[in-house]
Amino acid sequence: MERLLCYLLILISFSQAFVQKDMSKTAFVFPKESANSYVSLDALSKKPLTAFTVCLHIYTDLSTTRSFSIFSYATKKDSNDILLFWSKDKGYIFGVGGPEIVFKASEIPESPTHICASWESATGLAEFWVDGKPKVRKSLQKGYTVATDASIILGQEQDSYGGSFDVNQAFMGDIGDVNMWDTVLSPEQINAVYVGGTISPNVLNWQTLKYAVQGDVFIRSQLWP
Amino acid sequence: MERLLCYLLILISFSQAFVQKDMSKTAFVFPKESANSYVSLDALSKKPLTAFTVCLHIYTDLSTTRSFSIFSYATKKDSNDILLFWSKDKGYIFGVGGPEIVFKASEIPESPTHICASWESATGLAEFWVDGKPKVRKSLQKGYTVATDASIILGQEQDSYGGSFDVNQAFMGDIGDVNMWDTVLSPEQINAVYVGGTISPNVLNWQTLKYAVQGDVFIRSQLWP
Amino acid sequence: MERLLCYLLILISFSQAFVQKDMSKTAFVFPKESANSYVSLDALSKKPLTAFTVCLHIYTDLSTTRSFSIFSYATKKDSNDILLFWSKDKGYIFGVGGPEIVFKASEIPESPTHICASWESATGLAEFWVDGKPKVRKSLQKGYTVATDASIILGQEQDSYGGSFDVNQAFMGDIGDVNMWDTVLSPEQINAVYVGGTISPNVLNWQTLKYAVQGDVFIRSQLWP
Amino acid sequence: MERLLCYLLILISFSQAFVQKDMSKTAFVFPKESANSYVSLDALSKKPLTAFTVCLHIYTDLSTTRSFSIFSYATKKDSNDILLFWSKDKGYIFGVGGPEIVFKASEIPESPTHICASWESATGLAEFWVDGKPKVRKSLQKGYTVATDASIILGQEQDSYGGSFDVNQAFMGDIGDVNMWDTVLSPEQINAVYVGGTISPNVLNWQTLKYAVQGDVFIRSQLWP
Amino acid sequence: MERLLCYLLILISFSQAFVQKDMSKTAFVFPKESANSYVSLDALSKKPLTAFTVCLHIYTDLSTTRSFSIFSYATKKDSNDILLFWSKDKGYIFGVGGPEIVFKASEIPESPTHICASWESATGLAEFWVDGKPKVRKSLQKGYTVATDASIILGQEQDSYGGSFDVNQAFMGDIGDVNMWDTVLSPEQINAVYVGGTISPNVLNWQTLKYAVQGDVFIRSQLWP
Ligand SMILES: [Ca+2]
Ligand SMILES: [Ca+2]
Ligand SMILES: [Ca+2]
Ligand SMILES: [Ca+2]
Ligand SMILES: [Ca+2]
Ligand SMILES: [Ca+2]
Ligand SMILES: [Ca+2]
Ligand SMILES: [Ca+2]
Ligand SMILES: [Ca+2]
Ligand SMILES: [Ca+2]
Ligand SMILES: [Zn+2]
Repeated sequence: MERLLCYLLILISFSQAFVQKDMSKTAFVFPKESANSYVSLDALSKKPLTAFTVCLHIYTDLSTTRSFSIFSYATKKDSNDILLFWSKDKGYIFGVGGPEIVFKASEIPESPTHICASWESATGLAEFWVDGKPKVRKSLQKGYTVATDASIILGQEQDSYGGSFDVNQAFMGDIGDVNMWDTVLSPEQINAVYVGGTISPNVLNWQTLKYAVQGDVFIRSQLWP
Repeated sequence: MERLLCYLLILISFSQAFVQKDMSKTAFVFPKESANSYVSLDALSKKPLTAFTVCLHIYTDLSTTRSFSIFSYATKKDSNDILLFWSKDKGYIFGVGGPEIVFKASEIPESPTHICASWESATGLAEFWVDGKPKVRKSLQKGYTVATDASIILGQEQDSYGGSFDVNQAFMGDIGDVNMWDTVLSPEQINAVYVGGTISPNVLNWQTLKYAVQGDVFIRSQLWP
Repeated sequence: MERLLCYLLILISFSQAFVQKDMSKTAFVFPKESANSYVSLDALSKKPLTAFTVCLHIYTDLSTTRSFSIFSYATKKDSNDILLFWSKDKGYIFGVGGPEIVFKASEIPESPTHICASWESATGLAEFWVDGKPKVRKSLQKGYTVATDASIILGQEQDSYGGSFDVNQAFMGDIGDVNMWDTVLSPEQINAVYVGGTISPNVLNWQTLKYAVQGDVFIRSQLWP
Repeated sequence: MERLLCYLLILISFSQAFVQKDMSKTAFVFPKESANSYVSLDALSKKPLTAFTVCLHIYTDLSTTRSFSIFSYATKKDSNDILLFWSKDKGYIFGVGGPEIVFKASEIPESPTHICASWESATGLAEFWVDGKPKVRKSLQKGYTVATDASIILGQEQDSYGGSFDVNQAFMGDIGDVNMWDTVLSPEQINAVYVGGTISPNVLNWQTLKYAVQGDVFIRSQLWP
Repeated sequence: MERLLCYLLILISFSQAFVQKDMSKTAFVFPKESANSYVSLDALSKKPLTAFTVCLHIYTDLSTTRSFSIFSYATKKDSNDILLFWSKDKGYIFGVGGPEIVFKASEIPESPTHICASWESATGLAEFWVDGKPKVRKSLQKGYTVATDASIILGQEQDSYGGSFDVNQAFMGDIGDVNMWDTVLSPEQINAVYVGGTISPNVLNWQTLKYAVQGDVFIRSQLWP
């Protein structure tokens, strides 16, 4: 009996194995609402973080209908160790190690939208950029360290490490150009990323992405330039 | 007595006979509300479909007044086997084999509007483009096959094969540039069609259209460029 | 006694005598509300009409205050044989031989506005153009013929041939560039008229206009280019 | 006793003596609400008027707060012989010899605004231009003559010749480029004035203005080009 | 015991010591709400003022949420001797020596905003410029003199000389390019400052700023050009 369980676990882990691909000019498409369709990303660096920047494109028509997860980075210490989230009533939510700040917005327009979020432990300064425009900076978790070995998931929001998804927080639409650095990018660098440049990302790199797809997620041409 | 009936039937089928014409630069004009004015289209290919794209121009001032049919493709299996429909309260409705998805919109502006809809059975991915802009993709009827020998009707919505029209779902205004393919066009191809190119349509071809007009429908110059 | 009456009638008809003038670059100005200020136009052709196009410029700030007449073409058969009318609650009204259709609009902006209306008996197709933009075509009086010897009046709406005016339907503002044809102009021709060209009008011609002014109506430079 | 009064009157009239100056590129600034700060203007011509045009720039943020005087031209016959006035609820008021017409407007935008008003006795036609755009013409005081020897005041509204001011009708903000003619300017001339030209004004001329300041009114650089 | 207190006071004054720096291209960032984070500025000139101009950039998303201080210049005579303040319900508040005037505005847009305020004792004329556009001038404290030896604070509003802060009046966001003159700048000079020029400021000079930071205030690159 134990042996059977063991085989099953091996089977499951195989089905979760990461593939690597240059995702340039393509995007993940999440066409339907579910609690079991998602993409797991494998980080280039698994070290603890005292600073980071994450950038990505999303395209969705969901923002006036309900809240949803944009980027869910769970560690064994905290399932919300880094969280980008859309709250229908508040706007963009940026969380680090639990505490969250709000960057007010009434909707995400139904057109491809570029988002960058950065944070540094030394000052607690959190920055948030929407389509190349900086929101007013806020303070978040001064002195905190994001833990190691993250479970990074697109399409679902983790309430436990790698699981505990909620269909009402699932993403629908396109996500692409996901890149992550272990530093705070300067305004000039953010602008370079926004206009399509690559600034050698060292945590997640869309050009050499290691990912695993679960459920109804498809790779298609990007709908943005 | 039977012979008389037979003659009548022949007469009716003659009056329904398709004519063929290059419809370039022209449009069908539906100037009044009725349940018996419409255009039937004869497909180049009558094979079953596991993928398709249909594009057309409409010009109407009806969208804030009531719902109406845009493109009604009935088969003997399902009178709604392919359906493009405007719902006054929801927006654009796209149905395949019964189930429908909604692409939210509050109105169709009172100016000529270009619409493309595509679907593929393998993934269930449904795309919808309005004036060259893609709406967010949705999932619809993964694994389904659209049946053969369609009754394709503009101006009315079929609730049975070739009939059962409802005056409250009739179209008023102009329809033109109706083309259909048995494949999913790429974003580049959709854009080429939107700016006036022709991508060799193989199900319906506006340049060699076979159609039959019933009632008050007129052919006039296109009001769009 | 009869002789006196006769002289009076001659006198009245003299006071109504038409003058002819090239009205190019000028407009009739109706500066005040009344039931007795108006302009009568004398048609070049007095034949019955089975098709026509009429174009004109108006400039008024009245559209959100009340309804008013734009162009009143009465015959002995019908005082509303051709009628262009603004309805504060509905928009533009276009009537032929009694029946009317509505081209929805919420207001006429307080800037010079160019209007064309055309109709053809054979199909009943009625077209309406505002500032060079076609409204969606509608169906009106298929098979009808507009009668001969019209009383054509600007500034007032006729409820009988040449009279029965209503101060609440009087026009205030400027009217100019009134031209009329006994055919349906093509979209290209409408556009040529809109940008200031002349397409040889054969019912009313602003460049050789025969008109008679009653009451406080003045001729001034056009306020549009 | 009489002698003392006499001296006082001389003193007062001295303190009211007009100065003459080229006011080009400058404006009168009325920075506070009062019933005793104003500017009197001395006309070049004191003849009766059967036609006139007056143009000026104003800059104020008062239009959604309350009504105020723009140009008050009193004669011994009528303290409102010519009046330009802003009515918070109605828009621009233009009065001649008592009767007034309204040019509807909901606000004066908080930016420098150019206004011209003209009137002619022969037809009663009154024109009103805001920032070079003509409002729809109206009829006012056909056959009337504006009287001689006006008391022309900026900043306050006269209810008697040279006095009877009301703090609730006082102007706050800037007034400049005040010019007046004893004719009706053509649309081309109005446009020339609007873009900064000078059309030899013969009633009031900003370049050779004779004026007397009372109270807190200051001359400063114009805030418009 | 007294000696200990003395040492403590020396320690505190040391911790308050001003540093001097060229702040060009940088800004102070106030990322969180507090009553103890602020920046003190040391004036180049400590003389009494009978005229002044102060200019600065702010970037905040707070204006529709609550009121806050923009520039607090306290003297021993009056803790509000010069005050620039945002009132959520009224707009910009400009105070000199107690009395305040309001420059109406409904919000500060969530983008970097340039503000200049000037005042002169001789006329009482107060000017206020937002993004290079002058508001309508108002009258304020004619004949007043601003006292010497100011405590100039960014980030908090003083209710006593150098203290009595209120967390509900604290600034959040970025402040930069703070310059101050002891004269009224002309419209041309204000425009030169707005487009990035330097007009030799002699009270506060951003290029040679002497300042002391308290609490969570950080210096970062300017987010405006
Ligand atoms: Ca969670
Ligand atoms: Ca959750
Ligand atoms: Ca149906
Ligand atoms: Ca139906
Ligand atoms: Ca009538
Ligand atoms: Ca009538
Ligand atoms: Ca008065
Ligand atoms: Ca008064
Ligand atoms: Ca205070
Ligand atoms: Ca306070
Ligand atoms: Zn085992």
